[in-house]
Amino acid sequence: VGNHVLHLVLADSELEQVPREIASHRVIQQLARRRGRRPTELLLNSSLHFPAMRKLADADRRGRPDIVHVCLLLALDAPLNREGLLRTYVHTRHNKLITVDPSVHLPRTFYRFEGLMEHLFLTGAAPPENPLLRIEESSLAALLKRLKPKKVVTFSERGELKPLGGVFGGLSKEDDVCAIVGGFPHGDFLSDVGELSDELVSIDPEPLHASTVLSRAIYTYENTFGVHELRMRRST
Amino acid sequence: VGNHVLHLVLADSELEQVPREIASHRVIQQLARRRGRRPTELLLNSSLHFPAMRKLADADRRGRPDIVHVCLLLALDAPLNREGLLRTYVHTRHNKLITVDPSVHLPRTFYRFEGLMEHLFLTGAAPPENPLLRIEESSLAALLKRLKPKKVVTFSERGELKPLGGVFGGLSKEDDVCAIVGGFPHGDFLSDVGELSDELVSIDPEPLHASTVLSRAIYTYENTFGVHELRMRRST
Repeated sequence: VGNHVLHLVLADSELEQVPREIASHRVIQQLARRRGRRPTELLLNSSLHFPAMRKLADADRRGRPDIVHVCLLLALDAPLNREGLLRTYVHTRHNKLITVDPSVHLPRTFYRFEGLMEHLFLTGAAPPENPLLRIEESSLAALLKRLKPKKVVTFSERGELKPLGGVFGGLSKEDDVCAIVGGFPHGDFLSDVGELSDELVSIDPEPLHASTVLSRAIYTYENTFGVHELRMRRST
Repeated sequence: VGNHVLHLVLADSELEQVPREIASHRVIQQLARRRGRRPTELLLNSSLHFPAMRKLADADRRGRPDIVHVCLLLALDAPLNREGLLRTYVHTRHNKLITVDPSVHLPRTFYRFEGLMEHLFLTGAAPPENPLLRIEESSLAALLKRLKPKKVVTFSERGELKPLGGVFGGLSKEDDVCAIVGGFPHGDFLSDVGELSDELVSIDPEPLHASTVLSRAIYTYENTFGVHELRMRRST
C-alpha cells in the first residue's frame, strides 16, 4: 500500500453561520433564543430557516450542514481512514477550511453535530478538551498549494463521463492524490475546479448525492491500492 | 443486466416507538408535549431519551432512527435504485417491516424524517397523499419466504472474512439476491441470520457502520452486473 494518502476535500460546502443580513428575522431570533445563542452563532439550516432565507443569494442551495455530517461520518468510518491513509477536509462557500483529525469520533446524531459545529465556528477548534477539528481561512486553491498532491481529481456533473474504477489507476504508491467532492445539494462548484484539477470526472449520467460519490471514491481508492488485502493480512 | 433485483434488507433495525414502560418518564413527557404527540407516538431516540432508557433491555443499542435514515438515503440515491433494480426494506427489532418504494424522496434532514416515521408508525402508510412507505408485521424469515431470492447474503462481524468483490459472483442474470445488513449500532443480529442465510460474510476485520457496509454492497453489486455500463450506453 505504501504510505501515500488520499486527501479528500468536500469543497464549497454549504456550511456557514447565519448571515448577518437575515439575523433579525423572526424565525432566526426565535430559534436563537431557544438555543441560548446569538442569531449569527447558529448554523444556517435550510430546513429550519427557510422562511428567513428567501432574500439570500443562492437560497436554494445554502444551509446544508446535513450533507457535511453524513459525508464526514462515511469518510471517518472507512477502512482507509482506519489505516491512517485518508485526510479529510471541509472547505466552505466562504473559504473556511475545517481540518478533520482521522481519529475524531463525530456525533452520530445531527443535534449534537450541530452543537459541535457551532462551537467550532465560535472558537476555531473543537471539542474543547482535545481539539480534533480546526477551522481556518483558506481557499481551495491555497489548500491544494499546501498539500501538493500528485494528482487532483474533481467529481463533477460537468466532468467527462467515465467509470470510477480507472480514476486512481496509473499512480505510483508514493503519489498522494486529492479527490474533490462538492459539498452542496445541486448546481456547480463556486471554486474554479476546472483550473485547479488535473481531471474533472462524472461517474454517472445523473447527478449523485455528495455522500454517494464520496463513499464510492474512497472504496474505489481502497480497491485500487489493495487496502482490504493489507487489512486481511494483518488480521490473520 | 437483466431484470433481476437486489433485495436489500436493513434487519433488526433499532427503529421503534417509545415503549410503554418508559412513557411516563419526565424527559419523554416533556418532549411529547413539545411535539404535540402522545409519549408512545414518539420515535425512540437514544440521543434525546437516554436518561429515560436506562431501565430498558438492550438500552445501549436501541433508539437509533439515524442509522435507518442515513442508510435509506444512500440506498435510494444509488444508480441501482434509479434503474429500478433495488428493493429496500427496513425490518425492526419488533418484527415490523417497512417496504420502501424505490421512487420515494425521503427528507434529507433528520427532523423531517422523524416526523415521517412517526406518521408511518401511527397510520401504517406515509406520506398521506401518496403512500410510498408501508409498515406491516413481518419477521425476517417471513419476508425471505415471500421474496424467495436465489441467494441470501448476510453481512456480519461473525461471518467469514472475505473481500466483498466476489460475494455476488457466480449468480446468473435471472437470479434475485437478498443482502442483509444489520440496522443497529453494535452487537449481533436478533433474528437467526445463520439459519436464514446462504452465506455470512464479514468484509473487514473491524466492525463497520451499517451505512458503510450498505453503500459498498450496492456499489459492488452494480459493478458485478455492469449497471454503470448500462447507464453509460443509454445516456449516449
